[in-house]
Amino acid sequence: MGLSRNKIKLIRSFKGKKFRDEHQLFVAEGDKLVSELLKNSRCYFLAALPEWLDTHPDISADEIIIASEVELKRATFLKTPPPVIALFHQPNHDAKQLDINRGISLALDGVQDPGNVGTIVRIADWFGIEQIICSSDTADIYNPKTVQATMGAIARVKVIYTDMARFLREQEQLPIYGTFLDGHNIYEEVLPDTGIVVLGSEGKGISREVEKRVTRRLYIPSFPPGRATSESLNVATAAAIICSEFRREQV
Amino acid sequence: MGLSRNKIKLIRSFKGKKFRDEHQLFVAEGDKLVSELLKNSRCYFLAALPEWLDTHPDISADEIIIASEVELKRATFLKTPPPVIALFHQPNHDAKQLDINRGISLALDGVQDPGNVGTIVRIADWFGIEQIICSSDTADIYNPKTVQATMGAIARVKVIYTDMARFLREQEQLPIYGTFLDGHNIYEEVLPDTGIVVLGSEGKGISREVEKRVTRRLYIPSFPPGRATSESLNVATAAAIICSEFRREQV
Repeated sequence: MGLSRNKIKLIRSFKGKKFRDEHQLFVAEGDKLVSELLKNSRCYFLAALPEWLDTHPDISADEIIIASEVELKRATFLKTPPPVIALFHQPNHDAKQLDINRGISLALDGVQDPGNVGTIVRIADWFGIEQIICSSDTADIYNPKTVQATMGAIARVKVIYTDMARFLREQEQLPIYGTFLDGHNIYEEVLPDTGIVVLGSEGKGISREVEKRVTRRLYIPSFPPGRATSESLNVATAAAIICSEFRREQV
Repeated sequence: MGLSRNKIKLIRSFKGKKFRDEHQLFVAEGDKLVSELLKNSRCYFLAALPEWLDTHPDISADEIIIASEVELKRATFLKTPPPVIALFHQPNHDAKQLDINRGISLALDGVQDPGNVGTIVRIADWFGIEQIICSSDTADIYNPKTVQATMGAIARVKVIYTDMARFLREQEQLPIYGTFLDGHNIYEEVLPDTGIVVLGSEGKGISREVEKRVTRRLYIPSFPPGRATSESLNVATAAAIICSEFRREQV
């Protein structure tokens, strides 16, 4: 049977956010990521090489198609065609489902790069952070590049989009952290096990409206102090260091 | 005058490593990166919009060309055409120039992704790590994607390529760190201010030959202990956490 032209066209349509929103599905590719997602997520459609299907006899999907290398090459968003491409149902998280008073949550305020958003979801998962709140102008979690960068963490971390400034205004009971050039040395802070950590956009940092809601200003010092360096850390790099600092006293 | 077809072709040729090696030049694009590099690096050729040149009157380059948006769009490796594209001379670092007994050095053992290599250089720069030794199969530092990801740190960090296993065999006087699943909790270790930190490839980790030279095995614990998570951290994420741990006691 193989992967028809129509199916290839369908897969490729998921590059667009509008199409993803409409169908409430997202694309995942490659053995590692698809295998990881199959554990927790509902699979709508899966196309794979016969060899891949032979080694994954127990998979469950609404539709399974045996595909050729040439067909997968036509359908893929990756440079190297993967042995498997699948469409998964988007989990429907919303702000009401979050339990923001439990543990650490991340808040992404305008993070633009899909790869950065995916990497941050993967970091959150590693450090047991189960909830990420994104401003409406943050890159879409279901962008194929974002999905790939999560390496499957997308199945375990709840990601929701909302009006960030308004959302934070309602969390007055929680400490809200953000990094700023005039913040306190993060290495000297005693960090709690409950709270929200805001990460700003690559170019502009945390927006002014959101900054007003930040109650604890932090700073990651460069080394040695006072030396000229890159003017900033990449947002995913900062996320890694901050999450590590929040957890290091607790493991 | 503008940017000629030949010059556009020349810029685009630097996508290939062979061409870069032959000419000992590399491409940098965008206001931030080019401005940063102009501070420390010798510029062979620069093409920019007239507006950009007006706001940068003191730049020095062997050749400066006023270019149009259309021309820059044809020449660029980026999605959004930048106001400036430049070719810089590659600094000629070699292993003999390194002072490996001073401070922390990173060793990249087969890191494949150009973006990861660039991000790691930027992290090193932030944490005052001035030397990076790369195995021959690590992605080329002068790949346009790598250069972009360094955000200018490429001008401050010495990066050399060598036979990694042999290089490490000659560093018996230094502690050599690497991360492994059976390593010690990095948060509980007392880390020195001199030594080498090895980072392995995205898919395969540290190679067996290099592993033999590692004298201190570390591990970044996930949270909470024992929970199922992503099987690993991205190599640039791990680099950020490790470098932060090496420096946090010293700032």
